[in-house]
Amino acid sequence: MLKVPDHQVAGHKAGKGKLGPLVDDSGCFYKPYQCDDRGSKEVAFYTSFSSNTKIPAHIRRFFPVFYGTKLVEASDGSGLSPHIVLQDLVSNRNNPSIMDIKIGARTWYPQASDDYIERCFQKDRETTTSLLGFRISGLQIYENKESGFWKPVKKLVQAFNVEDVQLVLRKFVSSNSPTDSNSVPDCSFAPSVYGGSSGILAQLLELKEWFEDQTIYNLNSCSVLMVYEKESLLKGTSPGAEIKLVDFAHVIEGTGIIDHNFLGGLCSLIKIISEILTGPDEHTNKACLQDMEKNSVIDNGTNK
Amino acid sequence: MLKVPDHQVAGHKAGKGKLGPLVDDSGCFYKPYQCDDRGSKEVAFYTSFSSNTKIPAHIRRFFPVFYGTKLVEASDGSGLSPHIVLQDLVSNRNNPSIMDIKIGARTWYPQASDDYIERCFQKDRETTTSLLGFRISGLQIYENKESGFWKPVKKLVQAFNVEDVQLVLRKFVSSNSPTDSNSVPDCSFAPSVYGGSSGILAQLLELKEWFEDQTIYNLNSCSVLMVYEKESLLKGTSPGAEIKLVDFAHVIEGTGIIDHNFLGGLCSLIKIISEILTGPDEHTNKACLQDMEKNSVIDNGTNK
Repeated sequence: MLKVPDHQVAGHKAGKGKLGPLVDDSGCFYKPYQCDDRGSKEVAFYTSFSSNTKIPAHIRRFFPVFYGTKLVEASDGSGLSPHIVLQDLVSNRNNPSIMDIKIGARTWYPQASDDYIERCFQKDRETTTSLLGFRISGLQIYENKESGFWKPVKKLVQAFNVEDVQLVLRKFVSSNSPTDSNSVPDCSFAPSVYGGSSGILAQLLELKEWFEDQTIYNLNSCSVLMVYEKESLLKGTSPGAEIKLVDFAHVIEGTGIIDHNFLGGLCSLIKIISEILTGPDEHTNKACLQDMEKNSVIDNGTNK
Repeated sequence: MLKVPDHQVAGHKAGKGKLGPLVDDSGCFYKPYQCDDRGSKEVAFYTSFSSNTKIPAHIRRFFPVFYGTKLVEASDGSGLSPHIVLQDLVSNRNNPSIMDIKIGARTWYPQASDDYIERCFQKDRETTTSLLGFRISGLQIYENKESGFWKPVKKLVQAFNVEDVQLVLRKFVSSNSPTDSNSVPDCSFAPSVYGGSSGILAQLLELKEWFEDQTIYNLNSCSVLMVYEKESLLKGTSPGAEIKLVDFAHVIEGTGIIDHNFLGGLCSLIKIISEILTGPDEHTNKACLQDMEKNSVIDNGTNK
């Protein structure tokens, strides 16, 4: 009944002897408990969050629905093991374009161990996290039936510099091929995906407003997932552009202090997306495009 | 003609054999070039900033006026040396209460040397910088003619934890003695100092709006100075509550990225000040008050 998700863009993947998340046909996503106490911390977050009456409904919709925990057969063949049961965020999507963006200029948090802090600190400096206030953890952009998805390999995504990130955020909403280094991303889908009263920018701004005030949680090392469907858009129907927050293994309780780390990174992302919508097209055809092309994997568009 | 400033609350102080800033009678503040290339970097910032036509007037007023550079007799007796000539921010103030708040969850910046980053990183974790998104670098609170100023010594200020900072931001606008550990800060000046359409909160919000958009400068390790006059307030006239930005030795040019580090810290300060104005009085008489008292220095109110 359980199978490997079609559209996972970041994190550990299930496979032969490998532990990773699974999905079923009824729209559930089974996330295995992560090592150390991460799994139980993530469950603690979901348990707290789902019963917290102080979370407004317009904010709650940005989080996956939590269905509890369940012992299921692990993907690595190690037998029954505990999984967090969540809403499968893309089960009802056709060929979704997805980007996973880890928010915050630091992924460590002051209460963590020195060793953990040191490792995160180095990675934050090596990626765009420190400079930009966020980094892209993974993505897939649907092209068309023939080409399927552009899904750059992990190593390439991890090597993105600031300009790459700015460019990829343009490619994400462009009609021309993301792997064509000779054409400048046209950003022709930006108005319908990023823009509008219910587009991604509007959703990010709603989230920002909440983060300016909320002191309940500090969402360390948490990601914003952006999703939309290109085919719906081309058919003239809504692309279903939406954001979701995922990955709560490092959440700590706020203590009267806002999550300035998440908020700062979110504002940085908001600014870049705003500029794609309104600003001049500065981030044109860069040399990095060619590198990207070399290392990308072209999937077939796996459909439901 | 030049003398040691009466109201300096942070940074190196001029004295016997010690290099520090000086002031004159005409409202100028002479800041000696700092070691390494900090002095010249700060001059470069002021030169760029003062001629930048993209800075709106309502933002420019938050920065000290820059009058150029001048060779003057250094305070350490080492002879003529270059100084940055700035507006003396408190020359026209009577017994000003002042707080210097270094903004940002990190005081280092990605372009700095590994050694500098490591030192800043450790200090950011030891102080409230990482947790709170800012730290208090120094302060003086005017009490009355008899008691003068409460001006805690540097060592004490550096040891402030998050609760100390929250408490000191209340003491800053309270009529009862900041050194009296038996009384809870009444925050009775909060509406006239922090609140109102031209109060400190309104000014911080104006600054925030600019930082959400501007990508011209990244103000690393820069401070917000908050100033007001208690005596004016008690006389029923305006307390002259105002903020100014100071210390630009580590500014770097923005490259299409907002200063998410400054913005996040600023939002954290805004939230705490908002709560003092509107929220319940949670931060009451804490044990830390007693420690503060022990280590504080009571100045005589030096007047003009």
